[in-house]
Amino acid sequence: ENRARLLIRCPDQPGIVATVSQFLHEHGANIVTSDQYTLDPEGGQFFMRIEYECPDLLKKKSNMEKDFSLIADKFEMNYDFMYVHDIKNVAIFASKEPHCLLELLWEWESGDLMANIAVVISNHETVREMVESRGIPFYYIPANPEIRKQVEEEQKKILEQYDIDLVVLARYMQILTPDFVKEYKNRLINIHHSFLPAFIGAKPYERAFQRGVKMIGATSHYVTDDLDEGPIIEQDIGRVDHRDDVAAMKKIGQEIERSVLSRAVKWHLEDRIIVHGNKTIVF
Amino acid sequence: ENRARLLIRCPDQPGIVATVSQFLHEHGANIVTSDQYTLDPEGGQFFMRIEYECPDLLKKKSNMEKDFSLIADKFEMNYDFMYVHDIKNVAIFASKEPHCLLELLWEWESGDLMANIAVVISNHETVREMVESRGIPFYYIPANPEIRKQVEEEQKKILEQYDIDLVVLARYMQILTPDFVKEYKNRLINIHHSFLPAFIGAKPYERAFQRGVKMIGATSHYVTDDLDEGPIIEQDIGRVDHRDDVAAMKKIGQEIERSVLSRAVKWHLEDRIIVHGNKTIVF
Amino acid sequence: ENRARLLIRCPDQPGIVATVSQFLHEHGANIVTSDQYTLDPEGGQFFMRIEYECPDLLKKKSNMEKDFSLIADKFEMNYDFMYVHDIKNVAIFASKEPHCLLELLWEWESGDLMANIAVVISNHETVREMVESRGIPFYYIPANPEIRKQVEEEQKKILEQYDIDLVVLARYMQILTPDFVKEYKNRLINIHHSFLPAFIGAKPYERAFQRGVKMIGATSHYVTDDLDEGPIIEQDIGRVDHRDDVAAMKKIGQEIERSVLSRAVKWHLEDRIIVHGNKTIVF
Amino acid sequence: ENRARLLIRCPDQPGIVATVSQFLHEHGANIVTSDQYTLDPEGGQFFMRIEYECPDLLKKKSNMEKDFSLIADKFEMNYDFMYVHDIKNVAIFASKEPHCLLELLWEWESGDLMANIAVVISNHETVREMVESRGIPFYYIPANPEIRKQVEEEQKKILEQYDIDLVVLARYMQILTPDFVKEYKNRLINIHHSFLPAFIGAKPYERAFQRGVKMIGATSHYVTDDLDEGPIIEQDIGRVDHRDDVAAMKKIGQEIERSVLSRAVKWHLEDRIIVHGNKTIVF
Repeated sequence: ENRARLLIRCPDQPGIVATVSQFLHEHGANIVTSDQYTLDPEGGQFFMRIEYECPDLLKKKSNMEKDFSLIADKFEMNYDFMYVHDIKNVAIFASKEPHCLLELLWEWESGDLMANIAVVISNHETVREMVESRGIPFYYIPANPEIRKQVEEEQKKILEQYDIDLVVLARYMQILTPDFVKEYKNRLINIHHSFLPAFIGAKPYERAFQRGVKMIGATSHYVTDDLDEGPIIEQDIGRVDHRDDVAAMKKIGQEIERSVLSRAVKWHLEDRIIVHGNKTIVF
Repeated sequence: ENRARLLIRCPDQPGIVATVSQFLHEHGANIVTSDQYTLDPEGGQFFMRIEYECPDLLKKKSNMEKDFSLIADKFEMNYDFMYVHDIKNVAIFASKEPHCLLELLWEWESGDLMANIAVVISNHETVREMVESRGIPFYYIPANPEIRKQVEEEQKKILEQYDIDLVVLARYMQILTPDFVKEYKNRLINIHHSFLPAFIGAKPYERAFQRGVKMIGATSHYVTDDLDEGPIIEQDIGRVDHRDDVAAMKKIGQEIERSVLSRAVKWHLEDRIIVHGNKTIVF
Repeated sequence: ENRARLLIRCPDQPGIVATVSQFLHEHGANIVTSDQYTLDPEGGQFFMRIEYECPDLLKKKSNMEKDFSLIADKFEMNYDFMYVHDIKNVAIFASKEPHCLLELLWEWESGDLMANIAVVISNHETVREMVESRGIPFYYIPANPEIRKQVEEEQKKILEQYDIDLVVLARYMQILTPDFVKEYKNRLINIHHSFLPAFIGAKPYERAFQRGVKMIGATSHYVTDDLDEGPIIEQDIGRVDHRDDVAAMKKIGQEIERSVLSRAVKWHLEDRIIVHGNKTIVF
Repeated sequence: ENRARLLIRCPDQPGIVATVSQFLHEHGANIVTSDQYTLDPEGGQFFMRIEYECPDLLKKKSNMEKDFSLIADKFEMNYDFMYVHDIKNVAIFASKEPHCLLELLWEWESGDLMANIAVVISNHETVREMVESRGIPFYYIPANPEIRKQVEEEQKKILEQYDIDLVVLARYMQILTPDFVKEYKNRLINIHHSFLPAFIGAKPYERAFQRGVKMIGATSHYVTDDLDEGPIIEQDIGRVDHRDDVAAMKKIGQEIERSVLSRAVKWHLEDRIIVHGNKTIVF
């Protein structure tokens, strides 16, 4: 694959686009898509994502990165070159409810998830078979708040072993320690089963039912230390009415959860997301 | 018009539907639509809405009501006969932003709101012309938290004068006193510019922007003493992304607000809503 | 299970609801939900679906059916008693693309499809493993227009062997003969990958792309002799834009197809659908 | 206003983005948003829309246009400079149903339509008051197929008189001659009350009802000689069920029509649309 993506973040100033596109042109790269966003036309933060094709990319890339560092210095850029041939290693944390895990496995099997699902870790045995039957290693690590530290040590060892780039919490239902969260900053995606910031915390469907809402939702976000307060990547909703009890809401919600999480994971894998403060820019 | 609606609420027990439909049949009424809902198949609360046609309804109705009271006693029913020819008188409270008021006026002009918009009251002069040009009386009553009691006295006088059945807060933006709320219990509909229970209170779009949500919403509900906590009638949402600033969110939100409020008002006017605790049953 | 459903269709006239609900009450049945619809308030067709609970249903049901036949005669009713304990046997016809089949299997595994998936028949081997690994018999019957008659003979034999109540064409892609269609009238559900009546026939995504539509859709319908002209059960759509080529449309479409087909199948299994002429009434 | 947009269309080749962004940078312009699209990574058509801010634009613009023509020649570009301060003059053609016209007037009054609604022409008197009360000239020109040529002569005279840039058919319901269509090519927007290509031609709601669809839609498109076959700009849909007769569908459809048309008109006014063959690219 000769395809790559360049993600840029820097103070806005004249000439960025001209300089970057000139740079790519001079190195024989052809821009396929380009997106940009400025927080404030005058003097704010500038964000850019360029996807380009470049013949002989493998040979050229170290040289290009070196040359680009001069531009980056000049414009005070925070940047990343991402190469499509560097397939990301993904670990999925699951619990008892399999719908989100299954959706991801399904997308992966049908070739729509450009990633290597390297390992699945769960605090229950329920999903072992659906994971192993697909040839993916499965680890059962019982978890509860009291042994959190020790559980995470085991998990981290596995994540290192498989050289994991992204951890997806597919309805994992356990809170992670600040240490863990810090280590996987902006590489740890969770699905929360409510339309955040409504129903932060436990039992959102039960509370949605109590409140008598007419719509329920799901939110995928990067995990931070503050529960359910991380940068939101994607949300969606579904209609409910007075006939829907908690069980019906859960069922309707599962369809929303699985598609919201799957979209968020895809966008992350396609390097479409830039985190800025507590928000995401999704190009 | 020979059309009427019967709304019933009582403890669930065998024979309710049979008895009520027998009653209507014996009085020459033909059921047009019928909806029912039970909280719990065994021993919960039972809710029913029947819309029926009955030749010579005007002559018969007092007799029917008298006869029905025996059935109602037997089943411990809480019930209402609503007659389509009894057009409801509606008062709209507005403030500076006209979009919700305009939507209601528009629906009314095109014959889709079966009501008499009797009066519009506002704490600003901005909407006077669009109201008076349609032949609807307009009252300008300046309002602020300090003179709340006195303002509401004036408002109540007007509501009595026009024999108002339903008060619609079309982005009125002023908090009402418990006395006022009590007097118009289940007859006072508000539109809140967020997807409740997210962003209760002031400046929801500003807070949605701060939180970085990917969808914004609106909620219509009956007003209770607890701010934005009343029974929800209808909700809807719209997509936003990182490019949408607060002004863009407000604009997107206005379209949602006006259609959500207009649906809620229509359902109320068609006697489709039964309030049960802090929830609505919308048939 | 003591739960049953009564579906009624007859000329509208006074007293139907009263009589039917009286009948159920006298036989000790408690109405759980009831829906009705009249084509025309005066003298049109009347449709009704009642779901009821009845203790000792198994003992009572033959008697109830006999007693009801008198009422049915009087009102010239076309009716069906459906018992929830009579689980329907379903056959799924699939081809190469597995997404619709997989969705149904998934719903079934998670207990959300109240049916017995008795057999899967396909003209390709591709889906054999996902079927057999779930313990469902799989039959590979190669098919092409020239051997249609002979293929259908084999299929019919299998359908009889498994006592099939409903055949679902989960992207089967082969046209069936009028004989086959007749035999499974109103028990043969297809998913068409367009928003009918747009793009009837072959290659709808290719044609949607050519036309430059901004939304694509899917339609589930009962199969009739006229290609893609049968009674529509459910439809849904998804957004596309100029960046979406045919492959992207297919991918977006697959998500729509699988949820539209799954809803249609569920409604059929819950006896919610009454076919009237070339339309469906979905209660 | 120092804001402008540059729309480009040319054969794809390396260096376009670099050259154009370099050009803008050298002329002191700052890119605000930039979108691009290539039909085929190697050798297809390339499309680009750049919105930029440029101090002293008024003084510089003729020079910039002259300088750019050299670049345009080199890359064989088809291009347009559009200046935000050149407010477009819009004519609206209406008939009896006012909802689409009203929506546009409303958007315009609230400052969300960056255009000058210069004139409204109708073949009925119904909407005269709502137009004139807003200070917009109204012309009543009765129309029918037999006097089409003569009617269009009158209309064209008015369009010239007001120097019209865009004609919006807000449910005008009359077919225009090829001559008229040619003159306003890509500047003539229609709203069709169906989800095209379903229900091309007359009475789409009646036909949607006959077909028993579960969703109805609306389509805005540029008008071409082939009825309802022009490049689609935007579409949307709404749910209906068996209870919705033709009148109910029309009512639901009106809300869809007005928002679909209003979005299409806005995108045109913001120079977001490039027509390519029979499709639109909407940036």
